[in-house]
Amino acid sequence: MLDNETITGDVAYKHGGDIYSNNVKYDFSVNTNPLGIPETVKIKLTENIDLFEKYPDMECSKLRMAISEKENIPKENILCGNGASEIFKLVTNAIMPKKALVTAPAFSGYRYALYGTNAKIEYYYLEEEKDFVIDTRILDKIPLDCDIIFLCSPCNPTGRIISKEVFMKVLAYCEKNSIYLIADECFLGFVPDYELLSMKSEIYSNYLIVVNAFTKLYAMAGLRLGWCVCGNKWLLARMKQLQTEWSVSVAAQIAGVSALEDKDYVVQTRELVASERTRMTKYFATKGIKVFPSDANFLLVKSGINLYEKLLEKQILIRNCNNFIGLADGFYRIAVRSQEENSILINILEMCLE
Amino acid sequence: MLDNETITGDVAYKHGGDIYSNNVKYDFSVNTNPLGIPETVKIKLTENIDLFEKYPDMECSKLRMAISEKENIPKENILCGNGASEIFKLVTNAIMPKKALVTAPAFSGYRYALYGTNAKIEYYYLEEEKDFVIDTRILDKIPLDCDIIFLCSPCNPTGRIISKEVFMKVLAYCEKNSIYLIADECFLGFVPDYELLSMKSEIYSNYLIVVNAFTKLYAMAGLRLGWCVCGNKWLLARMKQLQTEWSVSVAAQIAGVSALEDKDYVVQTRELVASERTRMTKYFATKGIKVFPSDANFLLVKSGINLYEKLLEKQILIRNCNNFIGLADGFYRIAVRSQEENSILINILEMCLE
Repeated sequence: MLDNETITGDVAYKHGGDIYSNNVKYDFSVNTNPLGIPETVKIKLTENIDLFEKYPDMECSKLRMAISEKENIPKENILCGNGASEIFKLVTNAIMPKKALVTAPAFSGYRYALYGTNAKIEYYYLEEEKDFVIDTRILDKIPLDCDIIFLCSPCNPTGRIISKEVFMKVLAYCEKNSIYLIADECFLGFVPDYELLSMKSEIYSNYLIVVNAFTKLYAMAGLRLGWCVCGNKWLLARMKQLQTEWSVSVAAQIAGVSALEDKDYVVQTRELVASERTRMTKYFATKGIKVFPSDANFLLVKSGINLYEKLLEKQILIRNCNNFIGLADGFYRIAVRSQEENSILINILEMCLE
Repeated sequence: MLDNETITGDVAYKHGGDIYSNNVKYDFSVNTNPLGIPETVKIKLTENIDLFEKYPDMECSKLRMAISEKENIPKENILCGNGASEIFKLVTNAIMPKKALVTAPAFSGYRYALYGTNAKIEYYYLEEEKDFVIDTRILDKIPLDCDIIFLCSPCNPTGRIISKEVFMKVLAYCEKNSIYLIADECFLGFVPDYELLSMKSEIYSNYLIVVNAFTKLYAMAGLRLGWCVCGNKWLLARMKQLQTEWSVSVAAQIAGVSALEDKDYVVQTRELVASERTRMTKYFATKGIKVFPSDANFLLVKSGINLYEKLLEKQILIRNCNNFIGLADGFYRIAVRSQEENSILINILEMCLE
């Protein structure tokens, strides 16, 4: 007889959004769009539910065309996957790196994706005193024998973007030294300057893979839809070869195409996130909770009080960051949710912090 | 610029169900349940569409419990995946076989799953004169240095079951020689003797992995849901470790649990398939089309006339089997569909064969 906890591995419960093993009324641990799945997407899914019977289009043809048009990138360079998580797995399995560089802190999914490869993982520790910013100092810390670097902009869990200037210098360094650069832009859609900041325009490079997803920006975590754009023909073909057949469901393909048709949703999202992030930042500051500057739809905060436990008692789940490599006890990631939900969080914190 | 057809690889267009690159009105190439997705499942999905926003339960807890109860196997030994295809990938990536044995013909997905492993594939050719039956003669053909065998019951595309007696002998041979046996039972739910034939009861073995899916029996190809049961603790843990995070969508988990609650659906399915299979078999025989005996919801037929082209002209897609290793030109796989659809096929064939 097997022990379920053994199978689970050491990563499973380390993410936000685990509403399944907690008694939760409000989930601030997961950082998906507070607007929820666009209404137009829900209607489209309901109308097309009979199509869930059909095998998915293996080529994700309509979806890739829609992404191509929206993002102004060639369809041929796009690969869709079962969430960004599948893209990370495919890219590591295709490259089979011997050494990888990951920032600390960073999304644990990069480490998870590297499990299957036996790669040695080195960490580039971001400095709290510098508000965890990633700047050109990273260039001195990239090992020359490194095969792959994961960078996230905005970084999860810090919320900081990487400037285009810095990213371009890292890419130039990677190209010179034959290192693959994974630019994780899953949260970049929340940033008004998305088009200026995105690395998607640099796909002339053989060493760049830009990863994105519908998970966060379109609140579709339960449907699993991610994609990448990559100019390296060999790498893209190898990823496709390693991919599970029919990996992207009919539901995800329909939802993805429909989401991209909704032009207002992203505009509304950016406005909401910006104004609520400002409100929450100001509130935390008044309570002596240290807030790190964020460009994303979540805030990294630091407090001597165990906010995780205090809020869980009130059925509010936030992300305890003490299992992020590079963060000690006392760091928490709190999502920027709707005005109403954020007010509830603030009201409950008022009571907790008295 | 990449060429899309290059990325596709050589497997993509070789499956049935590719309604995306053909102009098709009736699809007899795909062998999913002619009853379509259970109505109760569609209702449940529609009612719970807001949950598609949440991250899936990584442990598929409710779903594994439902499978455990329905199949009378321990929950701890069940792993769910993004279709049976993901299970095949995980098992080959976990075992990393050097040599694999696959029957010819067989579902091409086994070969596809082996791509990432560099395994040498040997083929056990089934004999047309023996109606492609798999019997104890296979025991003499299993290489001793083989690491993994894929067997499908009923076999796709032949439709023949493997008797429990034969399967048990193969398992004993595998155990003695440290060979992993993958028993693909994705079509076994269509067979009334499912409980007697299934190998799911033999999970004491460290060398057996029984694979099943909701794809065929519950007509959920577009939702992607497969599972396996395995008694080997190490293997199951390794598969889980290699699996994409949140691989099984919320939609698939909800649909799976709901499908298992519908007790009448499978009974109706078996009745329909049995009676329609008999009707179609008789019809083909009267037209001089050779029909091989089938226990499944599809028929392998042989004809000197190019049935694929003749029917495609009438917007009916059947599975041309000429790209199955072990089958030459002239073999076609035709799904057993609803009474109405089968009658349409028969009527059109009447015209074509005049």
